[in-house]
Amino acid sequence: MRLFLIGFGTVGQSLAELLLQRAEDLRTRHNFVPALVGVYTRSQGLLYAPEGLDLAQLRACAANYALYDGPRLHDSQPNIDRALRDYAYDVLIEASTTDLRTGQPAADRIERALTSGKHVVTVNKGPIALYYPRLRDLAREKGVHLRYEGTVMAGTPSIALALEGLAAAHIRGLRGILNGTTNYMLTQMEQESLSYDQALAQAQALGYAEADPTADVDGWDAAGKASILSAALFGAPRAPQTMSVSGIGHLTLDDLAQARAQDKRYKLVVRLTPEAGQVRAEALPLSDPLASVMGALNAITLETDLLGEVTLIGSGAGGLSTATAILNDLLAIHRAT
Amino acid sequence: MRLFLIGFGTVGQSLAELLLQRAEDLRTRHNFVPALVGVYTRSQGLLYAPEGLDLAQLRACAANYALYDGPRLHDSQPNIDRALRDYAYDVLIEASTTDLRTGQPAADRIERALTSGKHVVTVNKGPIALYYPRLRDLAREKGVHLRYEGTVMAGTPSIALALEGLAAAHIRGLRGILNGTTNYMLTQMEQESLSYDQALAQAQALGYAEADPTADVDGWDAAGKASILSAALFGAPRAPQTMSVSGIGHLTLDDLAQARAQDKRYKLVVRLTPEAGQVRAEALPLSDPLASVMGALNAITLETDLLGEVTLIGSGAGGLSTATAILNDLLAIHRAT
Repeated sequence: MRLFLIGFGTVGQSLAELLLQRAEDLRTRHNFVPALVGVYTRSQGLLYAPEGLDLAQLRACAANYALYDGPRLHDSQPNIDRALRDYAYDVLIEASTTDLRTGQPAADRIERALTSGKHVVTVNKGPIALYYPRLRDLAREKGVHLRYEGTVMAGTPSIALALEGLAAAHIRGLRGILNGTTNYMLTQMEQESLSYDQALAQAQALGYAEADPTADVDGWDAAGKASILSAALFGAPRAPQTMSVSGIGHLTLDDLAQARAQDKRYKLVVRLTPEAGQVRAEALPLSDPLASVMGALNAITLETDLLGEVTLIGSGAGGLSTATAILNDLLAIHRAT
Repeated sequence: MRLFLIGFGTVGQSLAELLLQRAEDLRTRHNFVPALVGVYTRSQGLLYAPEGLDLAQLRACAANYALYDGPRLHDSQPNIDRALRDYAYDVLIEASTTDLRTGQPAADRIERALTSGKHVVTVNKGPIALYYPRLRDLAREKGVHLRYEGTVMAGTPSIALALEGLAAAHIRGLRGILNGTTNYMLTQMEQESLSYDQALAQAQALGYAEADPTADVDGWDAAGKASILSAALFGAPRAPQTMSVSGIGHLTLDDLAQARAQDKRYKLVVRLTPEAGQVRAEALPLSDPLASVMGALNAITLETDLLGEVTLIGSGAGGLSTATAILNDLLAIHRAT
C-alpha cells in the first residue's frame, strides 16, 4: 500500500516514526506492508519516491527535504493538484493544519484524490465537518474508502465504534467530552483549586492549549467535532455556527464547589441528536459515566435503541494518538481490500 | 446471506425478531438481505427452508415446529452434523446453551461448519474459551470468518474495539467488570443497603442470576470471559481453571462502607495480561473509570502501548443485547465479503 502524506508536523512525523518502528510488526501481525511514497508540506514542497521513501532518513530531514539523499524527486514548488492526479499512490493521508471555516485547501485535495480513485484517510477536521456528504458520495461512486477516525477523539476509535461495532443499532443521540484542554482545566480547578487563569496557563505550559486558546475554551473545537459526528452518525451536516455553542470561561471555583456539594461535576458537554447540536458547560450528576472522565481524556456516550447507552473513554489528542488513528484506518482499508 | 441458527431460546428468538423488524432497515442502510434458512434445537429438531423461513410464523411456533405451515423440511431427530455439512447456508450462528467445561457439542458443530467452508458467528462461550486457536486457524485455512462478539459484554463491541478499532496498538493488559449479576448485587448492597442474600434474591427475581448463582457469584462466568479475551487478544489460551478465581460471597455491607470511607468501591474485577489471569473482588479507587460502572452494566479498560487506557462501558447481558452482537457480526461479514 503506497501512501501519499500531506502535512508533516507532529502527526505526520509520528506516523512516519510508527511506520518505521512497526514495519516488522505490521507485516507479521497484519500482513500489511505500507510504503510512504510522497510527503508534501507547504513550506518544503514535495518529496516523492515511487519505491518508498527511506523513513529513517526522512526523520532526519523533516525540516529540509533538500538534505534527503537517494532516489527521489524533490520539487519545492510543485503543482500538488497535478501530483495527486498523476503520481502513483494508493491512499492519500491528509494531516495538514485544519481550517474549520473553509475546510480548504484540504477539501479540494481530498476530492482530487477520490476522483482519481484513491482511498483517503484524513485527520483534518474541516473537510469532514463541512463537506462530508459530498465526499462520502464521491468515495462510494469511485468504490474507494474515506476514513476519518482521527478527527474525533484522536486514536480512540469513536467513529469505528458507532458505524462498525454498533452497525446494527440506531444511534438516537449522544453526549460527549470532546475537548481535552478544557477537561484538563476543569480537573485542575476542581482538584488543585487553581483559578481559571492558572489552569489555562498550566494547560498552555503542557502544550494542551494553543497560545490563542479561544477555540478550546469557547467551545468551537468541540463544536467542530460535533459537526463531524452529526454528519457521520446522523447523515445531518450541521455547521458549528448553526449550533448553540458556549464555553467554560464563566466558571469559577465557587461554581465547581457548589456543583460538588450537589454530587455533580462541571464538564464541557457536547449534546447531539439528529435534529440539533449544542456545546455548553453542564453540571453532570456523578452517576453519569462522563462525570468521572478526568484530565485531558475524552469520552462519548452513544444512546442506542438496542443496547441502551454505550460509553467510550480514551485519549483525545496528541501526535502519537492521532497517528495511531491513521494507522488503524489504514489497517481497516487493508482488511477490506 | 443464508443463516443457519442453532439454539432458539431468548437470544435466538430475539435475533429472529430483529431480522423481522429490521428487514427494511438492513436492506436500505446496509444493503444487507439475510434469510434464516435453518433453525435447530435439541428439543424441537430441525426446521429448514432453502428460500428462508417465514419469521413472523416462526415466532408463533418456537415451542412447536410442527405448527409451522408452508414449504419446509421438519426433522425432529435430524443428524445435525450431516445437515451442517450438506445443507445450503452461508453462516452458522451458534446460540445454544454454553458448556464452559467441555465446549461441546457446540465446538464440534462450529468445526463442522468451518470445515464445510461456512462463516461462523457464535455467542456460545465454551468453544471460544477452550478451542479458539484451533478454530481460528481452521477459519483462516478455509478463508471464512469466525466472529464471537457476543461472548463478552454481549452487544457492546469489546472484541471489535480491541482487534479492529485498535488494530495498530498492542494491548498490554486489561481489567474489566464482565459479570453484570455481581455488579448489580454490589450496587444494590451499596446504594440500598441490602444484605448479600437480599441482593442475590433481587438479582434472581429480575432474571439476572440463575436459580443456581454459583457461576456468577463465585467468579467463574467472569473467568470464562477472561479465557476468551486471553485467547483472542493475547493469543494465549488460558482455561478458567488455571486462573486465580474468587467471587463476592465474602463481602459484607461493612466491607463496602469501609471502602467508601477510603474513596474506593468494591467491584468483581478481571485482570488479564498475556502471562496471567485473575478474577477477584477489589476495592477500586473512585478515580478508576471502572469504579463508576453501576448496576448490571459491564466495562473493560484496555491498557495499550500507543494510546494509554481505553475504556468501553455498556450492556453486558440479555437476549436483545446478545442478538444485537450477532447482527453486528453478520454485518461485519457482509462488509468484508
